[in-house]
Amino acid sequence: MSAKIHEVRLKSRPIALPTAENFELVETSLPAPGAGEVLVRNLWMSVDPYMRGRMYDRPSYVPPFQLGEALQGGAIGRVEQSNHPDFKPGDLVESMLGWRDAFVAPSAALQKLPAENVPPQAYLGVLGMPGLTAYAGLQRIGEPKPGDTVFVSGAAGAVGSVVCQIAKLRACKVVASAGSDEKLNWLKSVGVDAGVNYKTCGNLLEAVRAAAPNGIDIYFDNVGGEHLEVALEVARPFARFVECGMISAYNAAEPPPGPRNLMYIVGKNIKMQGFIVAFHFDMRDQFRAEMTQWIKDGKIKWEETVENGIASAPKAFLNLFAGANTGKMLVKLA
Amino acid sequence: MSAKIHEVRLKSRPIALPTAENFELVETSLPAPGAGEVLVRNLWMSVDPYMRGRMYDRPSYVPPFQLGEALQGGAIGRVEQSNHPDFKPGDLVESMLGWRDAFVAPSAALQKLPAENVPPQAYLGVLGMPGLTAYAGLQRIGEPKPGDTVFVSGAAGAVGSVVCQIAKLRACKVVASAGSDEKLNWLKSVGVDAGVNYKTCGNLLEAVRAAAPNGIDIYFDNVGGEHLEVALEVARPFARFVECGMISAYNAAEPPPGPRNLMYIVGKNIKMQGFIVAFHFDMRDQFRAEMTQWIKDGKIKWEETVENGIASAPKAFLNLFAGANTGKMLVKLA
Repeated sequence: MSAKIHEVRLKSRPIALPTAENFELVETSLPAPGAGEVLVRNLWMSVDPYMRGRMYDRPSYVPPFQLGEALQGGAIGRVEQSNHPDFKPGDLVESMLGWRDAFVAPSAALQKLPAENVPPQAYLGVLGMPGLTAYAGLQRIGEPKPGDTVFVSGAAGAVGSVVCQIAKLRACKVVASAGSDEKLNWLKSVGVDAGVNYKTCGNLLEAVRAAAPNGIDIYFDNVGGEHLEVALEVARPFARFVECGMISAYNAAEPPPGPRNLMYIVGKNIKMQGFIVAFHFDMRDQFRAEMTQWIKDGKIKWEETVENGIASAPKAFLNLFAGANTGKMLVKLA
Repeated sequence: MSAKIHEVRLKSRPIALPTAENFELVETSLPAPGAGEVLVRNLWMSVDPYMRGRMYDRPSYVPPFQLGEALQGGAIGRVEQSNHPDFKPGDLVESMLGWRDAFVAPSAALQKLPAENVPPQAYLGVLGMPGLTAYAGLQRIGEPKPGDTVFVSGAAGAVGSVVCQIAKLRACKVVASAGSDEKLNWLKSVGVDAGVNYKTCGNLLEAVRAAAPNGIDIYFDNVGGEHLEVALEVARPFARFVECGMISAYNAAEPPPGPRNLMYIVGKNIKMQGFIVAFHFDMRDQFRAEMTQWIKDGKIKWEETVENGIASAPKAFLNLFAGANTGKMLVKLA
């Protein structure tokens, strides 16, 4: 077999906001799987904000994407051919070889999905990297206590929406910021106490103050920028800031200045801690067990925003920065 | 007895950099001590950067100074009259009733100094609040491990110079930033590995990079501003930022923007944590025991910068912001 497939390559490095021109859809052919290798047809691929960072040519916690090569990212696929005894045709597997219809790889690049009664694409969202990000970040850094007020920015996203729901399961009050009333209505339907539409509220500080009149104990930051400044302003003493991401700055040609009120960190005894989920994989088994149970019990819900076909992958990625997704942004490949 | 004494009152609230006009030296008379009260003659008083914060009329972790009232701050004095059985004339005591020659107060406002063979003013510096600030902040938040590189700003001050020496005792490499070669020479004489004169180095980032070519594991921040931005730039993964103070911003009429590279907190898994020493008083007994031993063993040294007489207290305070002190800034009152 030497099937024709399509993959998406990085054609040029974005300067500020990425555009479709930074990507290239290329037809290529798959080799036959060699000894110990497996051929996988991708069913779903993930697009995530962190991928923007890999498009810069600079040292970071993950190496930069290379120009002219297929991009990478989480994907769920089905085994079509296998030369390895651990995998057989029909197996559902997870890999980091998204952005392509299919691939041939050594078995070590694959993980079999658990045999649970959940849709496979959940392993790219609520049961996958975004879910673990929410679970580890909120609990290890945020240290939620019953009655705490948790402020979540980017709250309708793949990570934020899970943070909101875990915080509720931990008996916290949750204030969510998102960019549309539809997103906020969904978040309220899954238990969020108060919502702020940062695009229409006028004054973000006053809106957050009204939603959290006694201040906040935890800020789960996906956004940075003005949200971070507001969170510092309303933080209660000993607040914990879980620095998961700062999407407001990812596409800035010049890095924007930090918050003017950073000095509150001192006087309010604030802990502000960043993290990369890869350093919390030790929690993965515990996370998957607990999250699977929550899903079965109907305690955690999720939304998906789906684009169809490999050609739409760049659009799905770009839409992340327009806030077009509610819940997990996915590309359905087959 | 109704002795005449002098005290320094806050005459007006400083807008930006405080000036002598914000202070007023007033002659007043002491009442005779009532039941349970003690009359104390101050020998030494402390001026500290944190006092600037109390000159603003805003809620904070300590209440603002009141206009027309004597300022407050750490002081060491000698009991002259006592109507309380726990204190007798000649006892050396610590109080928060500085900025005045003498005072009458209930015994609860006083703590007797331990009977150790150290100069009493050390209890305003290396054995007092600045010493505990260094001890608790470096160890609880900085979590130093042998071989770590520790970057200290304001390194020649009362807190910074103790941080440098404790870090050396914890087998760390120490890079100190200060504003004069004399200060840096003193710091090197007590063990600091490398010094950066931030006033003359030209490019602070390059100077710190040269002093810490492998990056830093701990940043002990007394300064904020450009130093904080540089520290974020050279921080190694999982660095700890001990946010003790940001003196560069204390006198700004408009709060300056925060660091442009705050996003490194996420990608480098940095923990940035502020603290107020008052919430670490549980460490005080352990601190005093260990620090006293270090002093006796010659392992911790200190400098003092001394002004004489109550009338010079405002000058001593203002000089903190000109970097005029090496080590602890004190006013000798008697």
